[in-house]
Amino acid sequence: MQTIQQSFKIEYNYSVFFTEYLFDHSNTLLADFFKKFSEEGFQRKALVVVDEGFAAHHPGLADQIRTYFAAAVPNIQLAADIIMVPGGEASKNDPELFNKLAQAVDTYGIDRHSFVIGIGGGAVLDLVGYAAAVSHRGIKLIRIPTTVLSQNDSGVGVKNGINFHGKKNFLGTFAPPVAVFNDLTFLRTLDDRDWRGGIAEAIKVSLIKDQAFFEWIEEKATALANRDEAAMSYLIHRCAEMHTDHIAGGDPFEFGSSRPLDFGHWAAHKLEYLTDFQVRHGEAVAIGIALDCVYSEKVGKLPESDLNRILDVLNKLGFELYHPKLAENDKINLRNGLQEFREHLGGRLTIMLLDKIGKGVEVHELDADIISQSVDYLESSKIIHTL
Amino acid sequence: MQTIQQSFKIEYNYSVFFTEYLFDHSNTLLADFFKKFSEEGFQRKALVVVDEGFAAHHPGLADQIRTYFAAAVPNIQLAADIIMVPGGEASKNDPELFNKLAQAVDTYGIDRHSFVIGIGGGAVLDLVGYAAAVSHRGIKLIRIPTTVLSQNDSGVGVKNGINFHGKKNFLGTFAPPVAVFNDLTFLRTLDDRDWRGGIAEAIKVSLIKDQAFFEWIEEKATALANRDEAAMSYLIHRCAEMHTDHIAGGDPFEFGSSRPLDFGHWAAHKLEYLTDFQVRHGEAVAIGIALDCVYSEKVGKLPESDLNRILDVLNKLGFELYHPKLAENDKINLRNGLQEFREHLGGRLTIMLLDKIGKGVEVHELDADIISQSVDYLESSKIIHTL
Repeated sequence: MQTIQQSFKIEYNYSVFFTEYLFDHSNTLLADFFKKFSEEGFQRKALVVVDEGFAAHHPGLADQIRTYFAAAVPNIQLAADIIMVPGGEASKNDPELFNKLAQAVDTYGIDRHSFVIGIGGGAVLDLVGYAAAVSHRGIKLIRIPTTVLSQNDSGVGVKNGINFHGKKNFLGTFAPPVAVFNDLTFLRTLDDRDWRGGIAEAIKVSLIKDQAFFEWIEEKATALANRDEAAMSYLIHRCAEMHTDHIAGGDPFEFGSSRPLDFGHWAAHKLEYLTDFQVRHGEAVAIGIALDCVYSEKVGKLPESDLNRILDVLNKLGFELYHPKLAENDKINLRNGLQEFREHLGGRLTIMLLDKIGKGVEVHELDADIISQSVDYLESSKIIHTL
Repeated sequence: MQTIQQSFKIEYNYSVFFTEYLFDHSNTLLADFFKKFSEEGFQRKALVVVDEGFAAHHPGLADQIRTYFAAAVPNIQLAADIIMVPGGEASKNDPELFNKLAQAVDTYGIDRHSFVIGIGGGAVLDLVGYAAAVSHRGIKLIRIPTTVLSQNDSGVGVKNGINFHGKKNFLGTFAPPVAVFNDLTFLRTLDDRDWRGGIAEAIKVSLIKDQAFFEWIEEKATALANRDEAAMSYLIHRCAEMHTDHIAGGDPFEFGSSRPLDFGHWAAHKLEYLTDFQVRHGEAVAIGIALDCVYSEKVGKLPESDLNRILDVLNKLGFELYHPKLAENDKINLRNGLQEFREHLGGRLTIMLLDKIGKGVEVHELDADIISQSVDYLESSKIIHTL
């Protein structure tokens, strides 16, 4: 019998909107988005899931959402309850939260033509996205990221996931959202650590792809550190644009093993674990970037002057660039992160280093001694921040 | 800030191979398939998961697989253990089996460039496919279906899933395999009910799409009932071909709400539940087809002569076309299945009926009284089978 060859393509489209005061009655952006989902004979629904940490800073949020939908989105029926989930990495460790969301999808009759709307930081969006992606084989997901990190990076991409038996993002899918709404005003209630943390991903993408963007960050470092909203608005837009361009132009569902956007991330992931997530993701990425930049200089790729500019801008933004856990156990704990990163990627180890500011270069191995020397360099040159 | 428009396509390709004695040392099909995955610096692995029901009929299977890989597939490292899972719908109800498979993926270091190989009936392949799809955001899946139903229908498609709190396929994804291997000799150990059951999906697809195929089944009904392997081989190939063509030509990940391949399935799904899966999927589909054909005739679509031919061929193959649960609670239990089917599809109810043999037609509502009359018709015309 002749072999059957199956072949098809799936097309994905979504918009990342930038706005302020998303749920204010005068803002029609969200209502306009939903208008295209008005058809005869359909009653689409929406289940809203909110990060408790964000909700605590926005006490009237649930009422505001209900009022907005009642007034401006008559064709979408909100589920009777707005679901709250704890924020931060812990939310991805608790399988009961996943079950709670899947159960809510069932309870409120959220079908494949209805919506799940996630409002929160990256961890909550990862959890909500995963629950939406696997319920009924995929419910339409709207992401409303509330942190710099999720507005410029994870929230505009195509991944979701939860942890499993302590393994970060072990369970997850590639599942593009149907829309992302970035509200600048949601960032006002962030603490300084989270405001700063998200800038690390912008530095990352500028270093591997766009010298001009890096120079803009250099120029605006003080303004960004002082919580200038106009500067942050541009930074998020440019970073999100580069992130989405990279996804569309490359390998969106990562069938290969190259992951340039993971520059600085092998050490960052490990450091998050070694510190039990006391070091937050953006903070860990800043350290990971610093480490891989020092390494890049030590192996003769990155010019020393470039390295100094990079460390300067990270310092000026207030990032710590060293943590004692990096050196623990003669740096072996850190170096184990390389093997785990390889396993997570699958196949061959691929690590992004820098040739110069704005130009990444992939390598397939890192030297253990030079990693150790790079850690020592960061320790010896550390700046004590007072923030 | 300007809206960012994201847009990309993901391409999927896979082959459905037809063979006999897949793991015999003289059969190079599987070894040839794996040859294209030999690259420098990669050590790809494979985790094999087998349906216990199938393994019970093939006592030497695990050894045969190990011997085959050791001799013919040097570039793929088999996980130390071959995992066994119970077969049948029960395997999809137990969340611990999903956890067991995810844990095995972790334990044996199966990364995204390695393989999970599922060997079994449709339920086991659904479970294994789901675990593979969400571990590391998607491990390469090879399906080796061992029943008629999985070889000609579910096993060659793009879905997976498990049940959640009693809801069939509530959790799942659309995730194409990287290859499917259909081994005719694996069907020899099927009991008569499962041999017959899979034929229902072939009848279904012939009725909505291909009169010539229906006429071939009519002609071969006695041979098929008598377990003629040559006839079954052709039936599976043609059914799988139509199934894969339909997926590629239509809406593979079902973003819309039309599901023509679910002809006869709304009642079938409900009947499976009402009988606690004592009526197997193919048997339920045969009844569901009969019911929707009678309905099609009663509403003036399907000619009576066509209806009689359809019921004749189902009878000749040995299918029961009535079950007392259809009439239970004044047929209300059955009719509730319509609403559940709508919820599962999402959005508007879409049901396939027949205009004539080989030509389906979609409708958006069914009349409760005519459903009841159709059940009565099946009861009054039932044939007592002695199989």
